[in-house]
Amino acid sequence: MNIVSNRQEQAFSNPLAMRAASRNGSWTRETSGAALGYVQANLAILPSALADDFLRFCVRNPKACPLVGISEKGSPRIPDLGVDLDIRTDVPRYRVWEDGELAAEPTDISDLWSDDLVVFAIGCSFSFEEALIANGIGLRHVAEGHNVAMYRTNIECVPAGPFSGPMVVSMRPLAPADAIRAVQITSRMPAVHGAPIHIGLPASIGIENLDQPDYGDPTRIMPDEMPVFWACGVTPQAVIQAARPKFAITHAPGCMLVTDKPNAALIAF
Amino acid sequence: MNIVSNRQEQAFSNPLAMRAASRNGSWTRETSGAALGYVQANLAILPSALADDFLRFCVRNPKACPLVGISEKGSPRIPDLGVDLDIRTDVPRYRVWEDGELAAEPTDISDLWSDDLVVFAIGCSFSFEEALIANGIGLRHVAEGHNVAMYRTNIECVPAGPFSGPMVVSMRPLAPADAIRAVQITSRMPAVHGAPIHIGLPASIGIENLDQPDYGDPTRIMPDEMPVFWACGVTPQAVIQAARPKFAITHAPGCMLVTDKPNAALIAF
Repeated sequence: MNIVSNRQEQAFSNPLAMRAASRNGSWTRETSGAALGYVQANLAILPSALADDFLRFCVRNPKACPLVGISEKGSPRIPDLGVDLDIRTDVPRYRVWEDGELAAEPTDISDLWSDDLVVFAIGCSFSFEEALIANGIGLRHVAEGHNVAMYRTNIECVPAGPFSGPMVVSMRPLAPADAIRAVQITSRMPAVHGAPIHIGLPASIGIENLDQPDYGDPTRIMPDEMPVFWACGVTPQAVIQAARPKFAITHAPGCMLVTDKPNAALIAF
Repeated sequence: MNIVSNRQEQAFSNPLAMRAASRNGSWTRETSGAALGYVQANLAILPSALADDFLRFCVRNPKACPLVGISEKGSPRIPDLGVDLDIRTDVPRYRVWEDGELAAEPTDISDLWSDDLVVFAIGCSFSFEEALIANGIGLRHVAEGHNVAMYRTNIECVPAGPFSGPMVVSMRPLAPADAIRAVQITSRMPAVHGAPIHIGLPASIGIENLDQPDYGDPTRIMPDEMPVFWACGVTPQAVIQAARPKFAITHAPGCMLVTDKPNAALIAF
């Protein structure tokens, strides 16, 4: 989920500085614009009894749930994403879910940690948005400082155990030539949602009104633009919420896990 | 230019057989469906005084004029496209242009050959259509056995010497997910027009009425489909015609130069 309104306020030029500020409690807000060039990730923490099902869900739905890291059971570390990384403290703000209901929004989950938990880090559109912008493709929601528009679709994810539900997509309006270039650019980044799943014709994927996104903010579409739809990391959050597990933790919207992995390292070819 | 109505009639399973039949005069028609798996090319033969300008035109407009071969001045051979290949006899039917007017449609140009001519072979959409079909993407004009729909656009080619004019595009209607996959597939084939140049919104590129193509046949577009536009090899033909050179030779529509180069060899990555 993209929160960009504070893009100008942040001074964290590298992932370690960002994580350190989260860790010591001095930063408790969105991470958009921090540590540019490095992968930020959606976070899901589940009891081990659900972890196998959720892992299969991610593997079966790689466009919505591209895994960039997974912990050992009981370990709060994912060394591949940062040797110092401690998942209990390094995200600015978390959401704690009990029976599918939001129970708390702490900035530290050390006291909630247990040897039974498994951490999933899932790719985020920040990485490909950076690549689009680097290619000269303007993104209106970024320019206007609001959240990307997101919609539930009529595309059912492939279920696994208790996890099922519709794919959520993000939408960015682009001129046709930019849309084609965006397909090329994001095709190279399968670990962060990859190519769009749809272009134009919102009704074909069950979106009746682009002006009323289910998440985020509406984005104007100009007459010479097409809506371009990417699978979105809100999908796994919505699916976890719908499964109503006794206990789960995610990141708070826009408060991502900032990793040491360069975006460039995600480029498949 | 795609002529597919005789796709079922042809028995030329390899490029040499196709060229031999053209050479001995036993085949004087379209080459669609012949020697599947091998590159077919648009042909332009120009006096050397125009060749440098035309070469620069092709280099400046690579999506419409992707060069797959060029002869030495005065040579009717392009060994890279076939060791036996003789451009004077190996195309089923030619068009001879004098001062921009169609002067003849011979099946052999040996008597018109001179040491002053230069041959240009330009990639053709047959190659990428084969790749699309191999990926399970249906093409309506192929299924219905008519020519692809082609349109003059308001996109001006980058001029070179006397050569200038609008880009001509071919249009294929595709469901959005297929359109995205088609961008991926054709991006890998820059030598045969590469990625689409436009998708949806025909008016943005100066196409007022999709039902009235400037070349080829109209193709129905279903409500759940988008028109997808590729730069087309008719562009250089139209540009040569408009330049009104004293003398030029092209292939007759659909009667392509069939080469020994596998389509697979054009895949860039």
